[in-house]
Amino acid sequence: MTRADAGWEEPPPELLVHLPHHDGSPRYSPAPPVNLGDTFPVLLRAPHEARVTRVAVRQVHDGEPFSQVAEIVAEDSAAQWWRAELTQRNPVVNYRFLTDSGPYGYRWITAAGPVDHDPTDAVDFRSAVPAGAPDWLTGAIAYQVFPDRFARSGRVDDELLRRAADDWATVVDWDAPTAGFGRERARQLYGGDLYGIADHLDHLQALGVNLLYLTPVFPAPSNHRYNATSFDRVDDILGGDEALVELVEAAHLRGIKVIGDFTTNHTGSRHEWFVAARADLATEEAEYYFFGDSADDYEGWFGVPSLPKVDHSRLAVRRRMITDPDAPVRRFLRGPFRLDGWRVDVANMTGRHREHDVNAEVARDFRAAVLTEQPEGYVVAEHFHDYRDDLPGDGWHGVMNYAGFAKPLWTWLTGEWPAEHWLGIPWPSWPQLPGQSVVATMRDYLAVPWPALLASFTLIGSHDTARIRTITGSEELVEVAVAALMSYPGTPMIWSGDEIGTEGLNGEHGRRPFPWDDPESWSTATLRAYQRLGQLRRTEPTLQTGGLRWVFVDADRIVYLRETIRESALICLARRAGSPIRLPKRALDVHDGQQLETLYGTGVLADDGAHVTVPGTGPAAHIWRWRRAGPSDSEQTHPTTPHQPEEDRWPR
Amino acid sequence: MTRADAGWEEPPPELLVHLPHHDGSPRYSPAPPVNLGDTFPVLLRAPHEARVTRVAVRQVHDGEPFSQVAEIVAEDSAAQWWRAELTQRNPVVNYRFLTDSGPYGYRWITAAGPVDHDPTDAVDFRSAVPAGAPDWLTGAIAYQVFPDRFARSGRVDDELLRRAADDWATVVDWDAPTAGFGRERARQLYGGDLYGIADHLDHLQALGVNLLYLTPVFPAPSNHRYNATSFDRVDDILGGDEALVELVEAAHLRGIKVIGDFTTNHTGSRHEWFVAARADLATEEAEYYFFGDSADDYEGWFGVPSLPKVDHSRLAVRRRMITDPDAPVRRFLRGPFRLDGWRVDVANMTGRHREHDVNAEVARDFRAAVLTEQPEGYVVAEHFHDYRDDLPGDGWHGVMNYAGFAKPLWTWLTGEWPAEHWLGIPWPSWPQLPGQSVVATMRDYLAVPWPALLASFTLIGSHDTARIRTITGSEELVEVAVAALMSYPGTPMIWSGDEIGTEGLNGEHGRRPFPWDDPESWSTATLRAYQRLGQLRRTEPTLQTGGLRWVFVDADRIVYLRETIRESALICLARRAGSPIRLPKRALDVHDGQQLETLYGTGVLADDGAHVTVPGTGPAAHIWRWRRAGPSDSEQTHPTTPHQPEEDRWPR
Repeated sequence: MTRADAGWEEPPPELLVHLPHHDGSPRYSPAPPVNLGDTFPVLLRAPHEARVTRVAVRQVHDGEPFSQVAEIVAEDSAAQWWRAELTQRNPVVNYRFLTDSGPYGYRWITAAGPVDHDPTDAVDFRSAVPAGAPDWLTGAIAYQVFPDRFARSGRVDDELLRRAADDWATVVDWDAPTAGFGRERARQLYGGDLYGIADHLDHLQALGVNLLYLTPVFPAPSNHRYNATSFDRVDDILGGDEALVELVEAAHLRGIKVIGDFTTNHTGSRHEWFVAARADLATEEAEYYFFGDSADDYEGWFGVPSLPKVDHSRLAVRRRMITDPDAPVRRFLRGPFRLDGWRVDVANMTGRHREHDVNAEVARDFRAAVLTEQPEGYVVAEHFHDYRDDLPGDGWHGVMNYAGFAKPLWTWLTGEWPAEHWLGIPWPSWPQLPGQSVVATMRDYLAVPWPALLASFTLIGSHDTARIRTITGSEELVEVAVAALMSYPGTPMIWSGDEIGTEGLNGEHGRRPFPWDDPESWSTATLRAYQRLGQLRRTEPTLQTGGLRWVFVDADRIVYLRETIRESALICLARRAGSPIRLPKRALDVHDGQQLETLYGTGVLADDGAHVTVPGTGPAAHIWRWRRAGPSDSEQTHPTTPHQPEEDRWPR
Repeated sequence: MTRADAGWEEPPPELLVHLPHHDGSPRYSPAPPVNLGDTFPVLLRAPHEARVTRVAVRQVHDGEPFSQVAEIVAEDSAAQWWRAELTQRNPVVNYRFLTDSGPYGYRWITAAGPVDHDPTDAVDFRSAVPAGAPDWLTGAIAYQVFPDRFARSGRVDDELLRRAADDWATVVDWDAPTAGFGRERARQLYGGDLYGIADHLDHLQALGVNLLYLTPVFPAPSNHRYNATSFDRVDDILGGDEALVELVEAAHLRGIKVIGDFTTNHTGSRHEWFVAARADLATEEAEYYFFGDSADDYEGWFGVPSLPKVDHSRLAVRRRMITDPDAPVRRFLRGPFRLDGWRVDVANMTGRHREHDVNAEVARDFRAAVLTEQPEGYVVAEHFHDYRDDLPGDGWHGVMNYAGFAKPLWTWLTGEWPAEHWLGIPWPSWPQLPGQSVVATMRDYLAVPWPALLASFTLIGSHDTARIRTITGSEELVEVAVAALMSYPGTPMIWSGDEIGTEGLNGEHGRRPFPWDDPESWSTATLRAYQRLGQLRRTEPTLQTGGLRWVFVDADRIVYLRETIRESALICLARRAGSPIRLPKRALDVHDGQQLETLYGTGVLADDGAHVTVPGTGPAAHIWRWRRAGPSDSEQTHPTTPHQPEEDRWPR
C-alpha cells in the first residue's frame, strides 16, 4: 500500500525559480533601515514567466496596513525588477508584495513564498530596527563545547573531582560509556576543563571556527551546570576564573570570539540567591522567585524542584542578574574575562509564567546590558520552536534555529534509528518527509528580519539533540547535512564531536568525551567535509551574506541560490539519487559565456547553452558559483535608486 | 490564453469532509476553560479515510511546546474520536493535533486545516480566558445605523441644521444624491436623528435584529461624527441626550440591545481636550496627544490634522477617557443612557504609534471599564486586517471580521464594478478568486479563540465599504452573501440599507438615506432573503453556536457544516451553477433513515442511500438540517469524559 492508496497525494516536483522573489539581502534590500523613521528601498525580481503587469507593496504602520505602487526600475531577458520605498515607522514593520498578472490573477509574494490567496500577516517579510548584530559575526562559524566532555588539561586538581563525587557526581574515566537515560545522565563527571579547550584551538581553526560557544561554566551540582549555585565565578572543576581568562585570551589571540551560556529562566535550587530566599522569605532574593506560602512552595521549571523559576516581572532580579553594573551578565564581559556575549538558555520561556509575559522586556534589558559592556557583543537565544515573534529587533540578536532549519532538515534526512520523543513528539520513529514539506517549513520561518536570520545559529545538532550521525545513519547523509549547514542563511554552529561522526540517541547520550587519543575512531570523511565546507563558508561571501532564492525541490532534492550583489552560488542537496535536474540558465541569471565554478562536490554541471543540468547523483551535495553581470543588478545600474549598497555585505 | 497557459494551475476541487477535524464548539470542545489553570478536554474527529493510528496534542505553556498522547474515546462507522486534556496555563494557550497515519505519513490538524508540513504556531488553535462575551450575544443579529442617514423624526429643530450649515455642513434633502468622493463626503448633512431610529424598530425586528449598533452620536463637525468635539453629550442635531435615552429605552422594551461607537484612537481637532491642550501645552490635556515643540506640531491620524492621535502610553488620558468613574466609556453605560457596550473605532491602531505599542493594555482597560458598569456589556473592535494577535481574551470580545470573512467572501462574489482602492489595493478592478483561495483565507483566520470568533461581527458591508449589491452586481449573488452572513460563525451585522439593495461604490457613496417613503425602490427579493435568513439565524442553534466543518470547495461552490452537540446544518453556497455535488452520508454523520430538512433554498437534496447529492443550481444558497444520533456524539456517551456539556450552548 502506498501513501496514494490512502488518499495522500505525493507532492509534485516544484520548479520555484520562475516565481517572483524578494528577501532582506543586499541584492533585494540594498539599503536597509538603521533607525526608526528611515525609508528604505525594496526590490522584487519578477521573472517574465510570472507575467506580472503591476506590483504593489503592502506595509503595516501603527497597526494599519496600506499599499503603494512599485515601479519597474530594470528589465533584462529573464526578469523585471520592481522597486518601492518603505518606511520604518515602527520597530518592526511587516510588508509583502502584491503581483498582478492581469487575467491570470494575482499573487502575494511573502517571506514564505508566493501565495495564491489573501494570507495573514504571519508570512510577511519583516524589517526591524535596531538590526545590529556585530560586524564580526558576518561569515562566522561557531563551535559548541560542553566543557566536561571536551578535553582534560591535567592542570586541575583531582581532589576537586573527589569532592564532587562525595557530593553529587559519579566521576568516570574519559573512555567510559556516556549515559543517555536515567539519573546518571546529569551525574557522570568526566572532568574536562577550560584549559583543555585552550589546548585544542588548532582543531577549531582547521574547521574555520572563529566563535567558541561554551555551555555553562558557573559552579553547579551537575555535569551540564544549567543549575548554577552562583553566577559570580567559574567552577573550580573547570579551572576556575583563571582558566576562563586564559582560554578567552588564547582564543582572542587567534581571532576566535568566546560566548558563555546564561540561564535567565531559572537557577539551581542550591543557588546562593535561592538559598538566601528559602532561609528568609522576607529577603530581597525571595522576590526573585515564585514562592507560595512557605519556603517549600515554589515554582520550578516545568515543575522540577531543583530548577526554581525566576520571576522577571520583578525588576529587582533583573537588576541583580542583568542590568546592574556588577550583574553577572555584564561583569563577565569586562576584564579580566572579556566574554564576547552570551547564549541565553531557555530564552523562549524566560519571563513567561502563567499570566506574566515580560519576555520581550527581559530580552531588551539583556541586549542593552551586553552592549553597554561590549558594543560588539552578541546575544543568541535558545529557542526550539516558533521564534518569529520573539525577534523584535531590540532583543536577542538571533536564536538557535531549530524550528526553521534543524528540524525540517532532520525530517528530510532521518533514517532508521530508535528515536524517542524526538522533535517533541511522544512516539518513536518518524517517517522522512519529502523535500517539498521540508522547504515549506523552512520558508514559513523566513518571516523574520533578515539580519536576525543571519545572526541566528544554523545547526544540525547540539547538546540537546540526537547526533546528526545517528539521525541520518550514514556519512554520506551527514555530508549533505553539513553542506546545508554551511550554505543556508545564518551562523553555522558545530556541536563538538559532530565533525568526527560522534553518535548519540539524544542530547545526553551524545555528550561523549572527545576521543583525542583515539583518532582511529574518527570519521575522516566527515571531518574532511566539515573542514572543506567550513573553510568555504569562511571565504565565500555568497554563502555568508547572499539572499536565499529557491530553485527546485522534489522529494529527494533541494536546490537553492545564495545571491550577493555580484555573485551567485547554486547549492544542490540530494538525499538520494534521482534524474538529473535541468534548469534554465536565464532564470538563474547565468549569462552567455559565463563560467560556473565548482566549489564543492564532484558532479559536473552540464551546459547545453540555454540550460544547466545538475547531476542526479545522491546522496550528494554540490555548490557552484559564478559572477553575474548585466542589467539584473538593477540596484547598481538604475539611476532612480538613490541608495548605493556596499558590495557583498549584509544589512546591519 | 488561460491561467494554465501562464503556468497558473487551476486548483482542483477539494473534498474536505474526510479530513480530521476539531474546533472550539461544544461538539469538539465540550467544556472549555473559564479561568486560568482550568483543564479542558478537546476532541478530534478522525474519519476512517484518514487512516489515523495515533493522535497527539501539542500545546504551548509559558512559551514552551510539549505534546501529549490522545486516546480513542469512541468510534463509529464514519470516524474515530480522539480525546486529550489540555490546561489553560496562560491567558492564551496555543494547541494543535498531530495525526499519525503510519506508513502514509503524518499531518498536523490546525485551526487552518490539515497541514502536511511542520507549520509555525500561526495556524494553531487558540484557547483564551476570560472568554466571556455576554450571554445575550448568543444568536444575536446586529444592525448598523449611521444616524444622519437612517430616519428623520421631525422632532429636531431645523434651526440646528441651519447653524451647522453656517459652520461646516451642506444641508441637503433626504432624496439628494450622496457624494462618494471629494470634500462633500463628510459635509452633506441629511438630518437623520435618534428619534427617527426609534420610529423604525419594527423594521429591525422583522429582520431578526436584537442588537443596534450606532455609529458615533457625539457632537462633531462632520456627518460621520468620528471627529468628536466632546465625549460628554449627544449631538443636539441627533436629538441630544434625551433622544439617546428614549431610543435605548424603546429598544430595550423590544429586547434590542444598543451599542455606541467610541473613537479611542483620536479625537477631532475641535475636541474640548485638544482645544485646551493647544491653548496651553502645560495643561494635563496636552499629555493626551503627541505634541512636538509647538501647538501646531502634533500627530494626526495618518497625518490628518483634523484627527489628532491620542497618546495612550500616558495613563492620564486612559483614565479620563476609559477608566475613571465618570469617563465617557463608563458613563454612557449607566443611567440614563444605559448603552450595552461599544464598537471601538480604529481599534487596531489604538495605542500604536512609532515605538509605542500599548494596544493590548488599552483593550484590557476598555473591557474592564465596560464590565465594571455593565457586567453583560459587549466590546467589538474595528479591525480591517490581521486581527489574530489582537484577541488575547482579556481585551475586545471580538472584532469586525473583515479579514477572515467579508474580504474573502467579496473576492469570491465580486463582479464587474469600478472598484477603486478596493481591499486596500491601489488599483481598480480585481478578478474573482476561486472558492479554494477564499476558503484558504477563511481558514487562516480561524486561528483565534472560538468565543472571540462568535463574538465578532460577521459582515458583508459597512459604512466603510462598497455596498454588497454593488460588489456582486446581482440580487442572486447578494442572496448567496446573506446566506453566508447568516450561517458562518460570528454575530451577523447588517449594514442598514443592504437589506433593500442599496448601492454604493465605497463607504461614503453607500451612506444613502434610507428611502422610507419610496418602498418601490427597495429590492423585495433581497429584503425577503434577509428576513427569512435572519429569522432562521435567530431560531437555529446550529447556525448560532455550531462548529464549522468544511465539506467541499471548488471554484464556484463552498459547502460546510455547522454542528452542535445533537444537530447538523449543511450549507451550500454557489456563485454559479455547476455539476451536482455527491457527498457520502457517513462522512456528514447522516445516519440511516435520517430525515434531512430543507431550511432554506429550493433545491432538493437527492438521497441514494449512501450519498446525498447537492443540486448544481446557481447562484444559489441552500441550508439543510438534521438531528444526529449514535456513538459519534462521543462526549455524551463515553464514560471517561468527566465534563457534561450543556446542549447547544456555546463556550463562554
